Amino acid sequence: MTTQQFGASPVDAVELNALDPSDISALDADTQQLIQRRRDVMGPAYRLVYTDPLRPVRALGTKIVDVNGDEYLDAYNNVPSIGHNHPRVVEAVTRQLSLLNTNTRYLCSDIIDYAEQLTATHGPELRNVMFTCTGSESNDLAMRMARHVTGGTGVIVSNHAYHGNTRDVSGWSPSSGGGWTQRADVRLVPPPDTFRTTASAVAEEFADQVAACIADLADDGIALAAMIIDPLFSSDGLYADRTSLTAAAEVVYRAGGLVISDEVQPGFGRTGDAMWGHQRWNLDADIATMGKPMGNGLPIGGVVAKPSVMSAFGSDVPYFNTFGGENVPVAAAQAVLDVIREENLMANSADKGAQLLAGMRASLQRAGRPSDVRGAGLYLGVEFVTDLDTKTPDPLIASAVVNGMRRRRVLISVVGPYANVLKVRPPLVFSQSDVDRFLTEFDHVIREL
Amino acid sequence: MTTQQFGASPVDAVELNALDPSDISALDADTQQLIQRRRDVMGPAYRLVYTDPLRPVRALGTKIVDVNGDEYLDAYNNVPSIGHNHPRVVEAVTRQLSLLNTNTRYLCSDIIDYAEQLTATHGPELRNVMFTCTGSESNDLAMRMARHVTGGTGVIVSNHAYHGNTRDVSGWSPSSGGGWTQRADVRLVPPPDTFRTTASAVAEEFADQVAACIADLADDGIALAAMIIDPLFSSDGLYADRTSLTAAAEVVYRAGGLVISDEVQPGFGRTGDAMWGHQRWNLDADIATMGKPMGNGLPIGGVVAKPSVMSAFGSDVPYFNTFGGENVPVAAAQAVLDVIREENLMANSADKGAQLLAGMRASLQRAGRPSDVRGAGLYLGVEFVTDLDTKTPDPLIASAVVNGMRRRRVLISVVGPYANVLKVRPPLVFSQSDVDRFLTEFDHVIREL
Repeated sequence: MTTQQFGASPVDAVELNALDPSDISALDADTQQLIQRRRDVMGPAYRLVYTDPLRPVRALGTKIVDVNGDEYLDAYNNVPSIGHNHPRVVEAVTRQLSLLNTNTRYLCSDIIDYAEQLTATHGPELRNVMFTCTGSESNDLAMRMARHVTGGTGVIVSNHAYHGNTRDVSGWSPSSGGGWTQRADVRLVPPPDTFRTTASAVAEEFADQVAACIADLADDGIALAAMIIDPLFSSDGLYADRTSLTAAAEVVYRAGGLVISDEVQPGFGRTGDAMWGHQRWNLDADIATMGKPMGNGLPIGGVVAKPSVMSAFGSDVPYFNTFGGENVPVAAAQAVLDVIREENLMANSADKGAQLLAGMRASLQRAGRPSDVRGAGLYLGVEFVTDLDTKTPDPLIASAVVNGMRRRRVLISVVGPYANVLKVRPPLVFSQSDVDRFLTEFDHVIREL
Repeated sequence: MTTQQFGASPVDAVELNALDPSDISALDADTQQLIQRRRDVMGPAYRLVYTDPLRPVRALGTKIVDVNGDEYLDAYNNVPSIGHNHPRVVEAVTRQLSLLNTNTRYLCSDIIDYAEQLTATHGPELRNVMFTCTGSESNDLAMRMARHVTGGTGVIVSNHAYHGNTRDVSGWSPSSGGGWTQRADVRLVPPPDTFRTTASAVAEEFADQVAACIADLADDGIALAAMIIDPLFSSDGLYADRTSLTAAAEVVYRAGGLVISDEVQPGFGRTGDAMWGHQRWNLDADIATMGKPMGNGLPIGGVVAKPSVMSAFGSDVPYFNTFGGENVPVAAAQAVLDVIREENLMANSADKGAQLLAGMRASLQRAGRPSDVRGAGLYLGVEFVTDLDTKTPDPLIASAVVNGMRRRRVLISVVGPYANVLKVRPPLVFSQSDVDRFLTEFDHVIREL
């Protein structure tokens, strides 16, 4: 039993939480004018979050200051993973940008040093890396590799997966919205919904669903290329169970497919108990892809793979990425890796995440608010439902909490096919006083609902 | 009559000019070890240019200094378009990185200011812009727009086009190499080869070829989405004629398709006579795409489009690009735009480009070397042939010149389906002394062939 039963037309999480551009009359004149200029020159694709859009002018660590001088606690942004404007990144980028910023057609040692350190964090099988600029490029490249190596074209993703914005990746990102239609070579598998299925049954159910997808592809004469999964099932509503994927991966391997672990969300220590999501499953993924937090905001992504996979692809296809592996983004990425180690950010993520989880759960129980609090480290979800018997999604409560927190100057968002799951995903440097401030405001908002 | 007649198996320009990784014994021990480490961790996809790879450690303006302290004149790199490590970019990036680097879900004025200035350089029709991180992402997004707006799927590109590295874009980048196979919805058109066709006939021939492509697609029941063209036909061997595309564009419009101008190579003033390649044709492209030089090395790309195109796409598809439009890359892009204006880099490109063209032509004529020197501004090509009667491509001479120039510490490369065309494409800040140094070394190399 999954959330899939609740109607056929999932809500767009961003839409629900976004400013309605046709109704901005409540905003001040300056903000209205800026929104109009933005719309005129950047078109309608760009959305602003919150009913009262945030106008940031500076940031540091876990704090963002807006145009009015008001300070916000950032409990949402995972790109500045080691904190907004971390001095180590500023220093590394400034130094490297004054020195050299060129491409991989020349021989530089900095990228090799970084590549060796990055692959070493992944475990013995994933020893090769290629560099891109974004998570979208990483997933696009990973699937090119999987198709090349397997000869198959079939792709399995979770029901409400998001893996990126290129044409190909959009084709297997059902949460892309915009009238997304399912391609003939794509199959969707329900996420391991630990809120609606017992923990002991979830892994077996998930493996059975994956097997059904493979059989269905085979019925259409389509061989499997890969199953690509975000180990936290972030856009499906956040399911952080550690047992869900191992059996399913075996099913994929038996069918000759590859397992791609999309580490854009869980990677770089966010879960607190592992550097990479695939390690939480005791799983050797064939490919792991990286993006967002890799350079703390400098655009850099990566694809780590087993040498057998990367050799087969790289020997045949002369892939080149102009900015991928430039010295400056690599310098930023090196600083991020160093800071994660030196500031013990994985341990901090585990500690502060556990406190946030327990604190939010206590507030919700005191208020008698039907919900499920879950997650790993500093990636937490709070699913709101109308009641605990039917567990019917309640997106309006989630939206009220997000905008209530924003009024109390704490930034979070919502996620999931019904936009009824709070997304709490702060920079990993979240401090004890940040935790205290967050929980104080959260308790206020929950009590006032 | 085009170069297509010379055999069915074009040479990979990078391959021909690349280091053969199986034969590095002539290099010093330190370089050999670095190459081995790189291969071990980054796999076989990465190529190094030159038979003796360059090991840069710092750069400034038009100069690159290698690990031995030797200074090279950079007449190749178009990413650092306003010069390596331009102080204005260093200053802008450092300042912004210490202040704020966030995404387009919040409301910031810097990106709107830049968007307005950027679109203003394109002319009255192209008034909307969306931001990406790379030229590949820009072209991928542009073609998604074209398909969405037209309902067609057919794509027309030039014979040896390169538009990027995503799965979709690779499908219409025949020069990608690696056993590229032509998709059913892609048609190839020979470039307007001004070396083998008279200038007066080239536009009409090109339009006829485009019409034939459209008819061929229609025969297969495929409606045209777009013709996407690099206005300099860079990877086809560099054809900079200003008359080639106008008639062909009319053919495309009559068939209901869009014209996409890939400005990654000609854009930002490189041609010396226009800010954008499509302007050289007196053509209002429907979409223009940008990448490489936009942020002088900071990863940023863009898609500029007619509001009718962007509205139709953006209203339906909630495209989001995490790093696309972040404050730091936008700050770099703003500095680039400012410097192009303030340092009169378009005029410099025209002036120094004309001198390089005349000087190279004189050296080649003195040496009696059968060749064609062509280009626009600071994007110049020198095509080597065995003789001027058959005009048979001569890639070995081109390779000898590239490596000869590298030994004399000037960096250039080769391009074109037969890798027989020198690619001379320096930063736009190329100075008078740079021109003199380049031509002196070029004359030496040509005389010693």
